[in-house]
Amino acid sequence: MKEVLAVIRMNKVNQTKEALALEGFPALNCRKVMGRGKKKVNYELIDDILSSGAVDSPVIAESLSEGHRLIPKRLLSIVVRDSDVEKVVETIIGVNQTGNPGDGKIFVMPVFDAVRVRTGESGEKAI
Amino acid sequence: MKEVLAVIRMNKVNQTKEALALEGFPALNCRKVMGRGKKKVNYELIDDILSSGAVDSPVIAESLSEGHRLIPKRLLSIVVRDSDVEKVVETIIGVNQTGNPGDGKIFVMPVFDAVRVRTGESGEKAI
Amino acid sequence: MKEVLAVIRMNKVNQTKEALALEGFPALNCRKVMGRGKKKVNYELIDDILSSGAVDSPVIAESLSEGHRLIPKRLLSIVVRDSDVEKVVETIIGVNQTGNPGDGKIFVMPVFDAVRVRTGESGEKAI
Repeated sequence: MKEVLAVIRMNKVNQTKEALALEGFPALNCRKVMGRGKKKVNYELIDDILSSGAVDSPVIAESLSEGHRLIPKRLLSIVVRDSDVEKVVETIIGVNQTGNPGDGKIFVMPVFDAVRVRTGESGEKAI
Repeated sequence: MKEVLAVIRMNKVNQTKEALALEGFPALNCRKVMGRGKKKVNYELIDDILSSGAVDSPVIAESLSEGHRLIPKRLLSIVVRDSDVEKVVETIIGVNQTGNPGDGKIFVMPVFDAVRVRTGESGEKAI
Repeated sequence: MKEVLAVIRMNKVNQTKEALALEGFPALNCRKVMGRGKKKVNYELIDDILSSGAVDSPVIAESLSEGHRLIPKRLLSIVVRDSDVEKVVETIIGVNQTGNPGDGKIFVMPVFDAVRVRTGESGEKAI
C-alpha cells in the first residue's frame, strides 16, 4: 500500500478528482497547503546591494519577502495498492502537466496499514 | 514508531481527543481536510441520460458535482510506539464507529525518527 | 529520500523558511495544524473535586476544555536526500529552540519516490 501525495494548483483540483474517479480512484482527501518551489533568492547579491547603499533597504526587504512568499496550493492524498501507484501518478501528471514552473510535485509514501472505521476491516480491503 | 492518521467527522474531534488522552495519548495534532469516500458517480449512466436528451444538462451537471463534492473532515495525527498502535486504533474506532458511511479511515504510516525541538532528544523519548 | 515534518510555532515560519533557504533547501510546503502537547489533564483529581461538590461543574468543565484546547501551529514539510536530514533537522532546531514547552516536534518519514509534474522526472532528481 502506498500514499500518493500530490501538491497541485488550486484550480486543478476538480479536474484531477474527476480524472482519478474515472480511472477507479474515487477515494481521496484534499488539504490546503502553502507551497514554495525552488526559485532561489540570491542572498549574496542582496548583501552586496545593501552594503553598497545604492538602494533603500525596504526595497530589498520587499524583494526578499517576494522570494519567500508562499503560494496557496492543494495537497491531494490518495491511498492505493502498490500496483496502482503508476496509474495514479500518470493520471495526475496527465491533468496537471502544463510545462510551466508550479505544475507541482508528487510524493509516494509507504503505508503500513489502513483501517475502515465503519467495519473495522484492515489492509487492502480497507482502501 | 508509527504515525496513526485518522480521517474522522468534524464533530468527533473533541471526544476522540479526550478518549486518546484518557488512554495515555495526549499528544496529537489536527488538520482540516476535505474528504471524499467511495460513492461512485456513474459516468456511463450520465452519458446515456445526456445523449438521450431526456433531461437538461444542468440537472446532470449538478448531480455530477454532488458526486464530487468534498466533505469537510478532520485529520488527526498521533505518533506512537509500535506497541501502542493497536490501542490507539481501537480507541479511535470506539469513538467514531457509528456503522454509517463516513465513519472515516485510519492509516498507519512508518516513522523513521522523531525529535523534540526544545531538548534535541530523538527517538522514542521524543514522542 | 525522507520527508522532514516539523510542527513549529506560527511566528517562526518565516525565519525557518529563510534559514532553510540559506542552507540550500528552498523547496517546502506549509500547512495549518492544531497541535496539542503533552500537558496532561488529571481526570482523577477532577472526578474527586466533582464528587466532593466543592465547586460547580462548569468551572471544572472549563478547566477540562482548557487542558484540551488545541493550539494553532504550522507544519512544514521538506523532502530531502537521506544525507541532508541531519542538516535540515539542525537548522530547524537552531531557529525554533527556545527551551520552552511548545518549541515543537520534528518527524522524519520515509519517502518511497518523488515526481516533478512539469517534467515527469522522478527520484532524487525531482526533489
